[in-house]
Amino acid sequence: MSQKLSVVGKRIIQPDAAAKATGNAIYVSDITIPGMLIGKVLRSPYPHARIKRIDKSKAENLSGVEAIITPEDTAQWQKFDRGLKDLPMIAGGYTVPADEGVLNERARHFGDAIAALAAINEHIAEEALELIEVEYEELPFAIDPEEAMKPGAPQISDFAGRNIGKHMPYAFPEGDADKALGGADCVVEGTFTTTKQEHCTAETAAAVARIDISGRLIVWSQCQLPHLARREIAHIFNMPVHKVKMITPFIGGSFGQRGSLCAEPICIALALKTGKPVKLVYSREENFIALESRTGFKCNLKIGFNKDGTLTAIQVYMLGRLGGYMGCGPMASAIGMIFGLGHYRCPNRAGEADMVMTNTPVSGAFRGFGNPAIMWGIEQLVDEAAERLNIDPLTIRLKNIKRAGETANMGLRLESTYLEECIKQGAEAIGWREKWGKKKEGAIRRGVGLATMTHCSGAAPLYLDHSNAFIKLNEDGTADLVVHPAPVGQHIWGALSQIAAEELGIHAGDINIVTGDTDVTLFEYGSDASRSTYVIGNATLMAARNAKEQILARAAEMLDISPEELKISDRKISSRVDPKKSISVAEVCYDAIYNFKGECLNISGKCSWESKWNSPPTGAFFAEVEVNTETGKVTVRRLVTAMDCGKAINPMAVEGQLEGGMQQGIGYGLTEDYVINKDTGVVETDNYDSYKMPGILDMPETKVIIIDEPDPKGPFGAKGVGEPGMVGVAPAIANAIYDAIGVRIRDLPITPEKVLDALGSG
Amino acid sequence: MSQKLSVVGKRIIQPDAAAKATGNAIYVSDITIPGMLIGKVLRSPYPHARIKRIDKSKAENLSGVEAIITPEDTAQWQKFDRGLKDLPMIAGGYTVPADEGVLNERARHFGDAIAALAAINEHIAEEALELIEVEYEELPFAIDPEEAMKPGAPQISDFAGRNIGKHMPYAFPEGDADKALGGADCVVEGTFTTTKQEHCTAETAAAVARIDISGRLIVWSQCQLPHLARREIAHIFNMPVHKVKMITPFIGGSFGQRGSLCAEPICIALALKTGKPVKLVYSREENFIALESRTGFKCNLKIGFNKDGTLTAIQVYMLGRLGGYMGCGPMASAIGMIFGLGHYRCPNRAGEADMVMTNTPVSGAFRGFGNPAIMWGIEQLVDEAAERLNIDPLTIRLKNIKRAGETANMGLRLESTYLEECIKQGAEAIGWREKWGKKKEGAIRRGVGLATMTHCSGAAPLYLDHSNAFIKLNEDGTADLVVHPAPVGQHIWGALSQIAAEELGIHAGDINIVTGDTDVTLFEYGSDASRSTYVIGNATLMAARNAKEQILARAAEMLDISPEELKISDRKISSRVDPKKSISVAEVCYDAIYNFKGECLNISGKCSWESKWNSPPTGAFFAEVEVNTETGKVTVRRLVTAMDCGKAINPMAVEGQLEGGMQQGIGYGLTEDYVINKDTGVVETDNYDSYKMPGILDMPETKVIIIDEPDPKGPFGAKGVGEPGMVGVAPAIANAIYDAIGVRIRDLPITPEKVLDALGSG
Repeated sequence: MSQKLSVVGKRIIQPDAAAKATGNAIYVSDITIPGMLIGKVLRSPYPHARIKRIDKSKAENLSGVEAIITPEDTAQWQKFDRGLKDLPMIAGGYTVPADEGVLNERARHFGDAIAALAAINEHIAEEALELIEVEYEELPFAIDPEEAMKPGAPQISDFAGRNIGKHMPYAFPEGDADKALGGADCVVEGTFTTTKQEHCTAETAAAVARIDISGRLIVWSQCQLPHLARREIAHIFNMPVHKVKMITPFIGGSFGQRGSLCAEPICIALALKTGKPVKLVYSREENFIALESRTGFKCNLKIGFNKDGTLTAIQVYMLGRLGGYMGCGPMASAIGMIFGLGHYRCPNRAGEADMVMTNTPVSGAFRGFGNPAIMWGIEQLVDEAAERLNIDPLTIRLKNIKRAGETANMGLRLESTYLEECIKQGAEAIGWREKWGKKKEGAIRRGVGLATMTHCSGAAPLYLDHSNAFIKLNEDGTADLVVHPAPVGQHIWGALSQIAAEELGIHAGDINIVTGDTDVTLFEYGSDASRSTYVIGNATLMAARNAKEQILARAAEMLDISPEELKISDRKISSRVDPKKSISVAEVCYDAIYNFKGECLNISGKCSWESKWNSPPTGAFFAEVEVNTETGKVTVRRLVTAMDCGKAINPMAVEGQLEGGMQQGIGYGLTEDYVINKDTGVVETDNYDSYKMPGILDMPETKVIIIDEPDPKGPFGAKGVGEPGMVGVAPAIANAIYDAIGVRIRDLPITPEKVLDALGSG
Repeated sequence: MSQKLSVVGKRIIQPDAAAKATGNAIYVSDITIPGMLIGKVLRSPYPHARIKRIDKSKAENLSGVEAIITPEDTAQWQKFDRGLKDLPMIAGGYTVPADEGVLNERARHFGDAIAALAAINEHIAEEALELIEVEYEELPFAIDPEEAMKPGAPQISDFAGRNIGKHMPYAFPEGDADKALGGADCVVEGTFTTTKQEHCTAETAAAVARIDISGRLIVWSQCQLPHLARREIAHIFNMPVHKVKMITPFIGGSFGQRGSLCAEPICIALALKTGKPVKLVYSREENFIALESRTGFKCNLKIGFNKDGTLTAIQVYMLGRLGGYMGCGPMASAIGMIFGLGHYRCPNRAGEADMVMTNTPVSGAFRGFGNPAIMWGIEQLVDEAAERLNIDPLTIRLKNIKRAGETANMGLRLESTYLEECIKQGAEAIGWREKWGKKKEGAIRRGVGLATMTHCSGAAPLYLDHSNAFIKLNEDGTADLVVHPAPVGQHIWGALSQIAAEELGIHAGDINIVTGDTDVTLFEYGSDASRSTYVIGNATLMAARNAKEQILARAAEMLDISPEELKISDRKISSRVDPKKSISVAEVCYDAIYNFKGECLNISGKCSWESKWNSPPTGAFFAEVEVNTETGKVTVRRLVTAMDCGKAINPMAVEGQLEGGMQQGIGYGLTEDYVINKDTGVVETDNYDSYKMPGILDMPETKVIIIDEPDPKGPFGAKGVGEPGMVGVAPAIANAIYDAIGVRIRDLPITPEKVLDALGSG
C-alpha cells in the first residue's frame, strides 16, 4: 500500500491520557448522585443449595436500610443470559437459554447471589447483610466437568442433559483427520490442561442505576457491549428499549469480563425497588467469585506430520468447565478450535468440545477466548514433532504457516500475513541462533522457546459484527465523532480519531469523541473479539468518507472545479492540477452551515458497517527463561513479541496492548491458578493474597516488534491487536523450559512443584 | 388536507411534564459540581463612566476569594456581539460589529459589568464584591434616543455616528406611499409610543462553566441558540469550536431574552481564570439591568384609505432605543415593519427606522419583536379610520385582510390564511354584536375592542433558517430523536415527538428526545422567530421520512412485496392491498440490526433543513374592558384570542402559548413600564416591587379559539405560534377603552393617570 499517511501511524498522545494520568477520569465507581443508596449482595456459602427461608426482618429493622430483595421479589422480572447470548448474535442461530434470574432460589455455585439490599451508606449496608438469616438446604454438587457428566450427578440446569451446556463442533472441519493421522509419518499427541484465570481488572465490577421521573432507567455500566446490555436490561425489566439509557464511563479494565452483565441487574433491581439511585460496587472477592473468569480446559490433541515436517492432520477434543450458568463460556471452545486448528495450513482438521456445567463460579470471555488453551498444547506438540523429525522449531513453523491468498482461520481469504517476518525478526531479537538447543549445565539453566499464533479482527463471519459511526463537521472544520467502543484501557478513542482525521484530511486533535451514551450512539455491537480498531475503525472510516464526499462536492462548487480533481490534507482542500486553487475545510463547513443559497447543510457522515472480512493478526512469541533445577522456580528473563497487526494506527497503543498481554501471559503460564476446593466448592483464591497475579516488578526485559504492514481490508491497513498479546506467552515459556531442562509441563500454571515433579525430584 | 392523523393533533401529556410538575426538572441554576465556585459581577452605578482605577486588593485578601477579574484581565479575549449577530445570519450580510468585551473599561449603562469575582460561596462572593474599590470618571450621558442623535451628544460606540446604531429600511417596500397618502380619501395618523418591557423569566440568567482536564470548555447555558452560542464562545475565548460543549438544561423562560449571550461570557472567564467550575446566577435586579429587554419605540404612522374602507397606503417611521450595546435590538424595527406594513393588503408601503444607542440597559428580542410596537399604532388607526368612514371595525378588517395566494409579509406566497375565521369566531365569542358601539353610562363603563395581526413561522427568507434532525430506530421499534430546540417552556419536545411518531407510524411515547448537548446535536439555528415547531418540526418530519423509507424498503423485502404497497400505522407495516401481509416496526428494526445477511443497518434518518417558506400565523384578539372613569383604572374582563396557527400539533401546547401571550399582553398594555431616571440614568424598576407584571390573579376570563386548519408548508400543517399570542392584546384593549369611554391612549402602558388625562380629568 503506497498511501501516504499524515495522521495514521503517528505516536500521538491519547485524548484520554490527561484525564487518566491526573485522576480526573470518571469510572463507574466514581459516580455519586445525591440521595444515592449503596447496594450489597448476599452470596451463597455453598456450591449448591436451595434457599428454604430468608428472614430479613432483623436487617429491615436496621435504620438506614431502604430495601432488601430476595428471589421472591425478583420473580417478576425476566430470566436472562448474563453473556447476552439469548438473542441470535452468532451465525446459525446459536443462542443460550435465559436461565438466570436477577436473584435465584437455588444457589448454583459458591458466591451465587441470593439476596441484596440497599442502604444509605456502606457501613449500614454491610451490617444489614449480616443480619439477613438464610436457611439453606445443601444439595449434592459437582465441581469437576468429568464428574458432572456422569450419570447421577446433580442436575445444574434443566436444559442441560448430563450437564452438557453445549456440545460445540469445530466450525470449519476439513478432510479426514482420523485417516490422515493414521497415515502420518509422525504423530504427536497429549492432554493439556489449563486453569481458570481471573481477569484481575483494576476496577472491580460496579454499576449505578437511577430511575428518572419519567420512568426512564439510567444505568452507568462497565459493559463492553452497551447496546446489547441495553436491549437485555430492557428485556429483563419489561421496559421498551428507549426507556433504558446506558452510560459508559471509563472502564477500569475488562479483558472480556465486562462482555457480560456484571453488577447491573441487581443494582437496577434495587433502584426499581427503592425508587432511588443505587450504586453497587463489588469487592475484590466478589469480583473473583460472582463474575465470569477464563474457562479451564482439558484438551486432547493429536497432530500428524510428514517426514519433511509438513503438517497433515490435527484433531482436538476440548472439555471445558462452564460453572453454574452458561454465560459466554461455550464459545471459548468454538473460538479456540477455530484459531488453533486453523492456524497452520492443514488439510485434515477435526474438533469437538463439551462445555459442561458445574457448581463453580461461571466461566466466560477472557482475552484470547479459548485460543490460549488450545495453543498451549499445539505449540508444545509442534516443538515435540520438530524434535522427533529433527527439524528446527523455526523451520517447522515456517514450513506450515499460511501465506496470503490461502484460506484463513474463519474460512475467508487470508488477505495478508506477515508471520514469517514475525518469526524471523523475533528470533533475531531473542538471539535464537546463539541460544537455542545448546547444552545446559548447572543448577540454574537457561533456555529459549517460541510459539506462534493467529487470532481475529472482529467476529465475522461467526458473530454479529455490526458497528456504526456518525461524524459531524463543525463550522470551523473540526468534527464530533459519535461512536461507542468500550474504553477499557485500549486507547480506542485515539485510534478512531486518527482514522477519521486521516480520511478527512484534518488533524487528530480536530476530532472530539462523543461516546458512552446509548441515547446518542447508533447501534454498536461493542468492544470484543479484537474488533474495535478493525470494525468500529472501518465504520468510522466509512462515515468519514461519507462526510468527505460532501466536503469535496461543496468545495468543488465553491472553487468551480470537479470534485475528482480535489484532495484534502492538513485542513485544506486543493486542486491536484492547480494547487493555487484551494480552500480550507473550515471555509467549506462554515459556508455549508451559514449559507443563504437555500442549501444549508451540516456536513455529516454516517455508516452502518457489517464486517464481511476478518483479517487475522499473527504473531510469534519468544521467551528466554531461567529454571532453577533445585527449587523448580522458573524465571522469565526476556520476552519478545513480534506481531503482524497490519498497519499500527498508533504504535504506542499497540505496544501497550502487547506488553499487557505479556504480563497476563506470564501469569497464565507461571503463577495464576483459580483454586476451588473439591470437597467444599469454596473458592480458595479470591484475592491477591492467594491468587498470584504478576506485577510490574515481576516483568522481564521485554521487546515488542511491530511488523507494520497494512492489510487490504483493515482501516488504513490495521488489524485487531487486543487479544493476541497473551496467547503465545505460556507455550513459548513451556518450550523454553524444555530447551533449558528437557522436560515438558502440560498442566498450567507451571509451578515449581510441577517442574520438580517433571525433573523427577519433586 | 385530508390526511388522517393518529398522533398529531392529540392532547398528549408532554414528555417533560412530570419532571416539571414534581420539581425534578434541572435548570442551570440547579447545577452543582464538586468544587464549584460562585461568581458575582460588579456593575456600574453610573450610566456612562470611565473606570479610572480598580483596587481589588482588599477583596483579594478575603479568604475564600479565588479570582477577581477586571477589564484588564479580559482584554486577551475577543470582543463580541451579545446578540450573536456578528456573523452573517441575516440575508444581505447584515452583521453587528463586535463591540462588547467580557468586561469593559467604559461603562455604557447603569448596570454595565466592570469587574467580576469567584469565591467558594455566595456569602463570601457578596462580601468581596463590596470590597472592590472603583474610581470612576463620570461621563455625560444620553438616555433618550432623540437626545442621543443630537450633535454634541456623548458618543456611545465608535462605529455609530450620531449614535445611530443602525438605520433600517423596510425590507419589502412597494408603490409610492407618499403619493398614495396624498390621494387617499381618508388619512389617519399618529405617534404611538411603547415602553421597554422586561421579560420577567421565572429563572434569572444563569450559567455554569467548567474546563475539563483536556482543556475542553463545558458550559451549561440557557441560550435559545446554543449552536450559535458555541461558535461565539469559541470565538471570544480563542478556542476551536469542538473544544466547546454547550449543554442546554431546562430553561426557566426566555421569551427572546436568552437569544443573546447572558451570563455565559463572564462565567466562562472566571472558570478560565480559576481553572475551577464556576456558577454565575444573576439576581432579579441584574436580570433587569444587565440583560436585553424589549425595545421602546416611538412610531410615526400614516395610513390611507379609500372611502369604501380599502387600505391604499401605509407609512411608518420608527425610532427605537437600543441602549449601550447593539445586541438584537436593531432587528426589532425590521421585523416590526415587515409584519406591520405587510399585515393588510396594501399596494403602497414605506417604512424606515433609526435604532439609536443610548446610555441605558440594552434592548433586544422579546416575543413579537417589534410587531407589538407597530401594531399598537396600526390597529388603533384602523379603528379610527373605520369610525371616520362609518364602517364597522370588523368589516374594515375583513375588507383588507389578505387571502391565500396573495403575497405574504415576507414576499413569499401566502399559502394559507384563516384570519377571516379568526375574526368571525372571535367576535362571536366576545359577543361583539351585542356589546360593541353601544352607548355607555355611569362611572364604570364597559367596552369591547379588537385587533388583528400576522406573524411568522421562522425567519426565512430574512434570517438563517437552518435546522437539523437525526432520528435512530432501536431494535424494538422505539426511536431516539436527536434535536436541539431550546426548552423554554413551550413544550417543543412533545410537538417534535408527535411529528416524528406520526410520520413513522408509531406512538408519541415511543420517541425519546435526545437533546441539549452541542456535542451530540447537529447544527440548530435555535428556538426563536416562532420557528421551532415549523422549522425544527419540518427537519424532524424529513428525518423521520428518511428513516421511514428505510423501514418500508426492508419491510417490503421481508414481506416480498413492493414498498409502494405499504403503509405504517400503530407500530405496524401492512399492505394496502392485502392487509394480512404485515410486519411490526419492531420486527423490521430488529432484523436490520441483528441480521446475518451482510446488510446490517441501524435504521436512522437525518435531515439538514433550510426553510424556504414561511407560513404566517394570523390572529384576532378581542378584549372586553371595564374603565373606572373616576379612578382611570382599566380592568380587562374578558380576552379572546382566535388564532390561525395551522394544524395544532398539540392543542394544549398552543393554548398554553396563547394564554401566556395574553398575560404578557395585558402587562404590556396596562402595567409594565421599565422606568429609567432621566437625570441619573438609574433603572428605577428593577424588581417586582416596582415593576408591575400581572400575575395569575390579574387574569380575566380568557378563551382561546384555535382555527385548526393545516397549512400546506408546515409539518402536518402546523405554523409557528410562539410569539403571536401577545401581539394584539394591547391594541385590542386600547380599542375597547375607546369603545367604553371614547378616548384614545397612544402611549403605553395605559395607566390610570393617562386615562384620566385623556378624559380631561387627570
